[in-house]
Amino acid sequence: MTAADLAPLIAAGDRRALARAITLVESRRADHREAALTLLADLARLKRQALRIGLSGTPGVGKSTFIESFGLMLTAQGLRVAVLAVDPSSARSGGSILGDKTRMERLSREPLAFIRPSPSQTHLGGVARRTREAVALCEAAGFDIILIETVGVGQSETVVAQLCDLFLLLLAPAGGDELQGVKRGIMEMADLILVNKADGDLKAAAMRTVADYSGALHLLRRRPQDPEGFPKALPVSALADEGLAGAWAEMQALLDWRRANGHIDRRRAEQARHWFEEEVRQGLLAVLTRPGPARDAMARLGEAVAQGALTPEAAAAELLAGLPS
Amino acid sequence: MTAADLAPLIAAGDRRALARAITLVESRRADHREAALTLLADLARLKRQALRIGLSGTPGVGKSTFIESFGLMLTAQGLRVAVLAVDPSSARSGGSILGDKTRMERLSREPLAFIRPSPSQTHLGGVARRTREAVALCEAAGFDIILIETVGVGQSETVVAQLCDLFLLLLAPAGGDELQGVKRGIMEMADLILVNKADGDLKAAAMRTVADYSGALHLLRRRPQDPEGFPKALPVSALADEGLAGAWAEMQALLDWRRANGHIDRRRAEQARHWFEEEVRQGLLAVLTRPGPARDAMARLGEAVAQGALTPEAAAAELLAGLPS
Repeated sequence: MTAADLAPLIAAGDRRALARAITLVESRRADHREAALTLLADLARLKRQALRIGLSGTPGVGKSTFIESFGLMLTAQGLRVAVLAVDPSSARSGGSILGDKTRMERLSREPLAFIRPSPSQTHLGGVARRTREAVALCEAAGFDIILIETVGVGQSETVVAQLCDLFLLLLAPAGGDELQGVKRGIMEMADLILVNKADGDLKAAAMRTVADYSGALHLLRRRPQDPEGFPKALPVSALADEGLAGAWAEMQALLDWRRANGHIDRRRAEQARHWFEEEVRQGLLAVLTRPGPARDAMARLGEAVAQGALTPEAAAAELLAGLPS
Repeated sequence: MTAADLAPLIAAGDRRALARAITLVESRRADHREAALTLLADLARLKRQALRIGLSGTPGVGKSTFIESFGLMLTAQGLRVAVLAVDPSSARSGGSILGDKTRMERLSREPLAFIRPSPSQTHLGGVARRTREAVALCEAAGFDIILIETVGVGQSETVVAQLCDLFLLLLAPAGGDELQGVKRGIMEMADLILVNKADGDLKAAAMRTVADYSGALHLLRRRPQDPEGFPKALPVSALADEGLAGAWAEMQALLDWRRANGHIDRRRAEQARHWFEEEVRQGLLAVLTRPGPARDAMARLGEAVAQGALTPEAAAAELLAGLPS
């Protein structure tokens, strides 16, 4: 099966073709890269769009359980759901947040669902491109909803925010003090804050946490992309399957408003421009890492700087003067 | 006074010349930049080195009071102390963490001390270069110790860590729960954690916080640049002037060990190489923002991408193909 054969198979919803295409966009081989670009350009003509939902939450808040329960609710409605992960830390930790499909055993057996484990990857730029292209492939394959999962580590949230239409922040019930623990930047990205584990012994704590965050959200300035009352905090229990339908109804209300007001299209246009610019930047910098005179000069001058023979500024000026411009 | 006149004046310790030179390296004018590079290269020949101490702490922990008390203790020993700030957020907040010298009124009147307020600046790359060059100027001016202050916001800590020989993290007394609030990455950079406000009503809480962090530090893997027992946590009171001499003794013990083991020189060499590489990257990317065909293509293709006429990948490939390489 060549790359050219993949496009119609993906368009027809073939899972194996989709999985192979994702492997293709993840590859660093130059010929794979060329085939991937052709494939992506081919599939872009379909102009298929899925609803892209970003989901962030630190380990322990119950992200897997939430994705499983939420995903099964959606597939039960006949919706096709893809799950992807952005995990820049997996290279370091050696693990993968979606490495084990058994984390979402029921969802992974569901014919309408597609779960892609996160490969280990070295740098965030690579992770961003890979995930963005996997999203495009899943859209072309006809999925209705793409869940993009990430751990709460800052930079990866920014990547996901630049990929999704809607951003969910999943939290665990906590004392009031811990409210400070959520980075302000991440809270400002969230469209819905879902306080999970609102069941059993933790229910009262979850309700208090919801109230705390509702209060905190009221202090944030209303964003132009939000109708009255958003962003908001809600209690859910992924384990007991409670509150998920309500959360989904809130998401749909928000999206309807944003669609009617042109925010979804505008956001997608801005995101596409962002990724174009990022791709250009990475492309420019690639001259420093691929074999060639620039990389050689980088090594030679870097050594001179380390030995104190040249200042960083003078060495950089010398290297840049030697590049075509 | 021309830039060429500045070098001997700075070398002779002239404060006004130093202040003007820092203004020169902060300037964005091309002719100023050229003069700044000449000046820095001239002064680099002096090979003067100061002890560079990075200091991080979130607002409210008492950084100004600490710098004032610690700085006065050092100047009382005859040491010349310069204070600089890395503040990437000042452009946004409109304020400057060192904008007001009255924050350190006594230290600013001290003849052996030099305090440079932080200018508002737009991007971290610029902040890093400006601070690094200000450090080099202060070293050439013969300061013994350079304190580089930053707020606890993540990226600026990384900049400071790449500029200093020793990194201090200043904390306030807190309940055990809040231990989570310090980003792991920042804690891993710290050589000494100083729990400030160990006085009066807060003394007991400060001692508990020191114990908590001591415990947490023991869980971190020992770094090759550390002797036995480091990094460590200590209580101090900048207000009551307690514990500062002890903290300084610990810093000197750590530095003596690192000097004897070659870590200081190795770290400086690595830092110089890092700044050279960063300078090259910024220089390469500058083609996208200065007036010219690349910037025009970026705008034109960015618009095509936003309108969905081209994929981000295809547009980036088109732009990069048009650049000389």
